[in-house]
Amino acid sequence: MTYAPPLRDMQFTLDQVIGAKRLAETELYAEATAETTEAILTEAGKLAAEILYPVNRSGDLNPARLENGVVRTSPGFAEAYKAIAEGGWVGINADPEFGGMGLPMTLTTAVGEMMNSACLSLALNPLMTQGQIEALEHHASAAIKELYLPKLIAGEWTGTMNLTEPQAGSDVGALRSKAEPNGDGTYAITGQKIYISWGDHDVAENICHLVLARLPDGVPGTKGISLFLVPKFIPNEDGSLGVANSLKPISLEHKLGLHGSPTAVMEFDGATGWMVGPEHGGMAAMFTMMNNARLGVGVQGVGIAEAAYQKALAYALDRKQGKSPTGDTGSIIDHANVRRKLMHMKSLTQASRAICLDCAFSLDMGRATEGEEAAKWKARGAFLTPIAKAFGTDTGSEVSDIGIQIHGGMGFVEETGAAQYARDVRVTRIYEGTNGIQAMDLVGRKLMDGGAAAEALLGEVEATAKAAQTAHPDLADALQDAGETVCDALDWMLKSGMNDRFAGSLPFLRAFALVLGGHYLLRAALAGGDSHLAVARFHILQLMPQAAAFCTAATQGAAPLYTLDAEALAS
Amino acid sequence: MTYAPPLRDMQFTLDQVIGAKRLAETELYAEATAETTEAILTEAGKLAAEILYPVNRSGDLNPARLENGVVRTSPGFAEAYKAIAEGGWVGINADPEFGGMGLPMTLTTAVGEMMNSACLSLALNPLMTQGQIEALEHHASAAIKELYLPKLIAGEWTGTMNLTEPQAGSDVGALRSKAEPNGDGTYAITGQKIYISWGDHDVAENICHLVLARLPDGVPGTKGISLFLVPKFIPNEDGSLGVANSLKPISLEHKLGLHGSPTAVMEFDGATGWMVGPEHGGMAAMFTMMNNARLGVGVQGVGIAEAAYQKALAYALDRKQGKSPTGDTGSIIDHANVRRKLMHMKSLTQASRAICLDCAFSLDMGRATEGEEAAKWKARGAFLTPIAKAFGTDTGSEVSDIGIQIHGGMGFVEETGAAQYARDVRVTRIYEGTNGIQAMDLVGRKLMDGGAAAEALLGEVEATAKAAQTAHPDLADALQDAGETVCDALDWMLKSGMNDRFAGSLPFLRAFALVLGGHYLLRAALAGGDSHLAVARFHILQLMPQAAAFCTAATQGAAPLYTLDAEALAS
Repeated sequence: MTYAPPLRDMQFTLDQVIGAKRLAETELYAEATAETTEAILTEAGKLAAEILYPVNRSGDLNPARLENGVVRTSPGFAEAYKAIAEGGWVGINADPEFGGMGLPMTLTTAVGEMMNSACLSLALNPLMTQGQIEALEHHASAAIKELYLPKLIAGEWTGTMNLTEPQAGSDVGALRSKAEPNGDGTYAITGQKIYISWGDHDVAENICHLVLARLPDGVPGTKGISLFLVPKFIPNEDGSLGVANSLKPISLEHKLGLHGSPTAVMEFDGATGWMVGPEHGGMAAMFTMMNNARLGVGVQGVGIAEAAYQKALAYALDRKQGKSPTGDTGSIIDHANVRRKLMHMKSLTQASRAICLDCAFSLDMGRATEGEEAAKWKARGAFLTPIAKAFGTDTGSEVSDIGIQIHGGMGFVEETGAAQYARDVRVTRIYEGTNGIQAMDLVGRKLMDGGAAAEALLGEVEATAKAAQTAHPDLADALQDAGETVCDALDWMLKSGMNDRFAGSLPFLRAFALVLGGHYLLRAALAGGDSHLAVARFHILQLMPQAAAFCTAATQGAAPLYTLDAEALAS
Repeated sequence: MTYAPPLRDMQFTLDQVIGAKRLAETELYAEATAETTEAILTEAGKLAAEILYPVNRSGDLNPARLENGVVRTSPGFAEAYKAIAEGGWVGINADPEFGGMGLPMTLTTAVGEMMNSACLSLALNPLMTQGQIEALEHHASAAIKELYLPKLIAGEWTGTMNLTEPQAGSDVGALRSKAEPNGDGTYAITGQKIYISWGDHDVAENICHLVLARLPDGVPGTKGISLFLVPKFIPNEDGSLGVANSLKPISLEHKLGLHGSPTAVMEFDGATGWMVGPEHGGMAAMFTMMNNARLGVGVQGVGIAEAAYQKALAYALDRKQGKSPTGDTGSIIDHANVRRKLMHMKSLTQASRAICLDCAFSLDMGRATEGEEAAKWKARGAFLTPIAKAFGTDTGSEVSDIGIQIHGGMGFVEETGAAQYARDVRVTRIYEGTNGIQAMDLVGRKLMDGGAAAEALLGEVEATAKAAQTAHPDLADALQDAGETVCDALDWMLKSGMNDRFAGSLPFLRAFALVLGGHYLLRAALAGGDSHLAVARFHILQLMPQAAAFCTAATQGAAPLYTLDAEALAS
């Protein structure tokens, strides 16, 4: 079993479905030509298949562990990380001024998918650093940028995100960590943070923690929170490492999956930190990092879906057993149920890939264009972000679960590796804002434009249906109908109170994503051959019909959810 | 965190939804009075909550292990098993002639659910023995019955089922194990069997393996297979243990979950066995055992769903965080998304419980009545069995997965226990015939009556809708419509070729189950109070609408699943 980078489908999706070639027509991303894109994807595919994939199982079997106050990572991880860093992959979309490649998020997304497929637990490390780079690029002082960005971009130092505290998970505003001014422009950071991915490790020489904490005059809630950069070793001005800071990992979590990624409880005991962004403006800066990371986490789901699909397909082709009515190969792939599962996996994987790539493309175009055009692209990207995160990660779980089922009894045995995918990907639906939070964001903040971004996307869906009317009238009609149903649900959302919206947010997001999937896959079918048509046909006629049912659920309002009190729920 | 046996809902479902009181009106189950039922359920609930639940985590953390050729089970398992055996729970539905309680499957099912909720890995042990008891009761010689049944029923010896071989999983007919006559009426059994649940252990003094093997003159395929009873220690005529047989566990699987249950690879090296049932008639005897076990496995799913729901509800009530638009308790249960998840869990759990209990009730009535009436009940039970197995276990996975999500980050941390439920229950969708096999059984063998059993059930659905028309017209209409949609899909199945049926079998089973769930929950609402109505309303208006989408998928035929060849699937 190996991992084969899905270069063909990625390239096809970029070119024919998303129209990503428009990036190279902008000044900002003029270097992202077809040639460069192909070269980058090919090279990243090699890294993923040849360097990262071989250490994936080792990470699961030999979890990172805390020994004498320092974290020892899984065998092979340090070398594999070095290959990522030395290949320049950490800084793929970072500012060239500090050593980055300056490539668009679109390309970063495609590269990230392959790294996630190959070894999710290790690929999480550069994803965290990339988020930190983006936050520093936007919010840090010139001095901090000059000192830190070259190191982070080169992968010599890595970044973490420290938001969560035991009493403050999704409700970040409840945090208690404190920042006291030291009088020299630095701050003493004190507090405990939990769920810190790659909070400590031995694969790079320094670790830079971005920590949310409250200044002495910070008001309660999110408006009193500031952001601080708190390095493990305090760097000298020349970038060499100085003294150890007053911080340490005090334990690692024993997790369902992602064993290769050390998830630390971090203790900051008057650690020296530098403020990033304005006083009490930490949440805005953190959101820069998190928005980026949300798309990145969606892509984690896509990556695992692709890897799980490849593994299941290989097994289905190889496993000789049973007679089926077709009986062509003597393998279980002859069975209709297995075929259904494979089509299900493939169509969800390709649909979620297209959503993530189009989200990234929108964000890129938002940066590369100006004025009203930029605003439209940005709104499009912002609307697609929670969908990319939630649908991408849901797809990761759903597809890897089907992968276990295709393996039959072998799927429940750990040595097969099918179960690892399901375990590893499970957290992606939780971290960077649970998928419930994503759904609330979608029907709350992302509809504050009066539904303009949503309607624009549904307009694109309708255009696709119209374009397909002659060639594939059944698919066109189904997409048109489903788009209208989602449009009706959208109208309901726009005129409903906030908790009614929230009550329907999860099925609404799901319905929207299924319809977008139909739209992208039908575009692919229009541009491509019979294979694309088969996938589009399966998705539109066999999976997308659920969108109507989800819209029904989405528009029931909050009241039915609150009928039962705690006692009635328990009995 | 504790486990609270859902006695109230079980009793209500039995009395008001299933009408299980009719059992006590039969001669066979005259003893299954309301009083006995209540006493048995209460006692079983105590066993589950006080003896089994406390060892559940230990089983996960300290997996059974193979040491010097024998299996050592998890700490506390031997004592907990002893309590099951000494309480008479292994023989709850076994023949009183050999020491069983002779109670109906309906009660066994309710008791089994609680044991499964409390500790699935240990509860699997008596489930296997119960299947063996039933197979021996039906197919074994008088001598074997007299020697083995009292020991098995008392739980002094346990039973296993040995079907699977490395090259023969769902395709049992491909097995290679051999049985050579020894000339003294016994046989020498040789072969390797895999996935043998509780294949070896130290919680009881003897282990009786029912092994499928082929006689020298057995034809290839399933028609040449015979069934043999092969004990670990060969018993003397007085039931005392004699010499060790030539069989041993050669390894244990490292599994995703169910760590407390040793899953062995068993080697039989000319082991002495006794034939059960006729020569070459092993499959029929094995099916007796498996049919019983299929319902039992469905109930495993229900048990885990209930346990996962209870844990998630407790967490949602306890976890203080975030402001919600309702903000009543300050706990996350105020949030609409959390409420939706809890309602989702509760309605699926109750729906699958009703399906399993009604399936058991039908099987009981098939035994307790005669002639045409018995035939109808048997057909009803046979039709419900694959639905109970597949929908019960799917519910176990779905609900435990939602349970993880409600726990947020804590859900991914193993010490919480939420993840264990999802890991443990995962295999129930695979063993005793994968859920894909169940779906094929439903649209294949179970429609060989021309759809009579299916139509009779859909007639019951329609009757429920009619009965609810005045009180709850919206729910009645929705159930009526969904029932008709499933009826149309059934008609399509009946006139379609077998592989077209198979191609739609999974979504068809799902649609049928969702509609049955609506039927049972609406019956509960008609008989009960507002709480039941709230659950019925949620299921019917928010989950059951998916039935139509599944019917659309179910009736697309096989062709769309076979469009892509191996190369196209891989690219």
